[in-house]
Amino acid sequence: MTVLISDAEVAAALDAPTTVDAMRAALLAGHDGQLVAPPRTAASLGGGRMVLTAGHLVGQWYGYRSYDTFGHPGTEQVVVLHDGRTGAVRAVAVGEELGSRRTGGLGGVAVDVLARSDAATLGVIGSGRMAWAQVWAVAAVRPLREVTVHSRSTARRETFAARVRAELGISARAVPTAQAAVCDRDMVVLATTSPAPVLSAADLAPGCHVNAVGFKQRDRAEFATDLLDRAAVLVSDSPAQARSYVPPMLAAEAPYAARLGDLGAVLAGAAAGRTGADQISVFCSVGLAGTEVFLLDRLVRVLTATAPG
Amino acid sequence: MTVLISDAEVAAALDAPTTVDAMRAALLAGHDGQLVAPPRTAASLGGGRMVLTAGHLVGQWYGYRSYDTFGHPGTEQVVVLHDGRTGAVRAVAVGEELGSRRTGGLGGVAVDVLARSDAATLGVIGSGRMAWAQVWAVAAVRPLREVTVHSRSTARRETFAARVRAELGISARAVPTAQAAVCDRDMVVLATTSPAPVLSAADLAPGCHVNAVGFKQRDRAEFATDLLDRAAVLVSDSPAQARSYVPPMLAAEAPYAARLGDLGAVLAGAAAGRTGADQISVFCSVGLAGTEVFLLDRLVRVLTATAPG
Repeated sequence: MTVLISDAEVAAALDAPTTVDAMRAALLAGHDGQLVAPPRTAASLGGGRMVLTAGHLVGQWYGYRSYDTFGHPGTEQVVVLHDGRTGAVRAVAVGEELGSRRTGGLGGVAVDVLARSDAATLGVIGSGRMAWAQVWAVAAVRPLREVTVHSRSTARRETFAARVRAELGISARAVPTAQAAVCDRDMVVLATTSPAPVLSAADLAPGCHVNAVGFKQRDRAEFATDLLDRAAVLVSDSPAQARSYVPPMLAAEAPYAARLGDLGAVLAGAAAGRTGADQISVFCSVGLAGTEVFLLDRLVRVLTATAPG
Repeated sequence: MTVLISDAEVAAALDAPTTVDAMRAALLAGHDGQLVAPPRTAASLGGGRMVLTAGHLVGQWYGYRSYDTFGHPGTEQVVVLHDGRTGAVRAVAVGEELGSRRTGGLGGVAVDVLARSDAATLGVIGSGRMAWAQVWAVAAVRPLREVTVHSRSTARRETFAARVRAELGISARAVPTAQAAVCDRDMVVLATTSPAPVLSAADLAPGCHVNAVGFKQRDRAEFATDLLDRAAVLVSDSPAQARSYVPPMLAAEAPYAARLGDLGAVLAGAAAGRTGADQISVFCSVGLAGTEVFLLDRLVRVLTATAPG
């Protein structure tokens, strides 16, 4: 019997600690080879593509996430979870919440692993769904003292700050420039739809950790190579996927590719992370394939555990 | 608001005339370029692949069907229908009924277009879900006088014949050999899972039309080239897909490829079909991509039209 799960149900059932914990498990499974996550595949449909990212947790489940590139305003992603023993479809999630929480959860793990343990202030550039999910997840791994947010729309950044205060109970201010959002911050989130750099790396404080969530490819990136040049620690949730993009991701090109680490390896203790309090660390979020299905499996477990009877 | 549709709901709402009519429209849309249906794409997951066949009816909808090759007994297909204007997911069908009815419907169109107009007897080899869907659809386009069925299991072929009598009200007999099932028949359905030939073309009566639904590739086919040699009319629902298989389909190799016609073109009157009462015609069913989504769209229209209020 297949369960259909809406955005409202995802939002009601998946809290940030659960989500970050699931993504921690997913990254470890990816590192030790239990999570099989091949590069994305796509079908061209004239005017847009249907894109599939699939995953298989050996012995447990397999499935995929689909999305399209038609650019329709109301497009929805689909995540499908098959039982790994019978092949039956256990759940289908339709909408955007599972995907943005998945990405938020990966960002939460990155902060937990790479940011200073005493990090308490967060600067955010961007005020959309992805920016929100990052703050939501970061708040689950670090006690936040203050959030500053900048985006081009005054109304949207004010609304975002008000939501941080109301839903997360954290002091938050909307600020008129990107520089004001990031300067003196322990942690920074970049989560815009900008194809051009939105910050100068010189504005970051020593010891800052950055989660980069938006565009990060050559000629289409919300940051420039000055950020990578300043990064003493440079990590992605999937260096393999980062290398497969066309055009390539900035962090997967020379001279950065050689030192682009794997977040799962750092998490497992198999690779070094931050080794000094003044280092700048940068997490290039690409969205490890299979993690949406991993999170849907976790969500189904949560729903099953709390169901009456 | 997404609708989740189960096998039981597909079975209750999609009758054979509606299904054949939808597949007729799909084939015409494929022929005139309105239905964009690229070759299948797949992701390798270790032990199996996740396969996607996608389609786009320009201005109306886009979507896909997914299935896997893990070989689990209870595996289910998923068909997703996006609204072509908003991108929202209108419906998700989970199970096997939509796919087998889709294939049945294509077979029904093939019979309607290629079999003699007075064809009234049907021989079936195979007694599974695919064999059933063929008989179900053929009965919607030709008044059947008798169905004969053979499969390796006596119990299964007897059950199949009883189901034809009970559900379709057609005289039906289970027979102990493939030869007995097909000799003297106006129409023949091959719908087995056999990787080796299950009939000799010499056993077919002049004028017979054959729907070949099972394996049809080099070294893995339920018929041999003697069937293609006898066929005066050779047609597929997608010659392009037939050519893309690895290993290639028998009918897409020399010398047959040159005369493998497109069912949509015959339907549209742009290519010749049967031109003589004694000709053997063969339909090589490959499952035109996008037709599952086409049928799901039709099903949603049926459900919407019959919904209370």
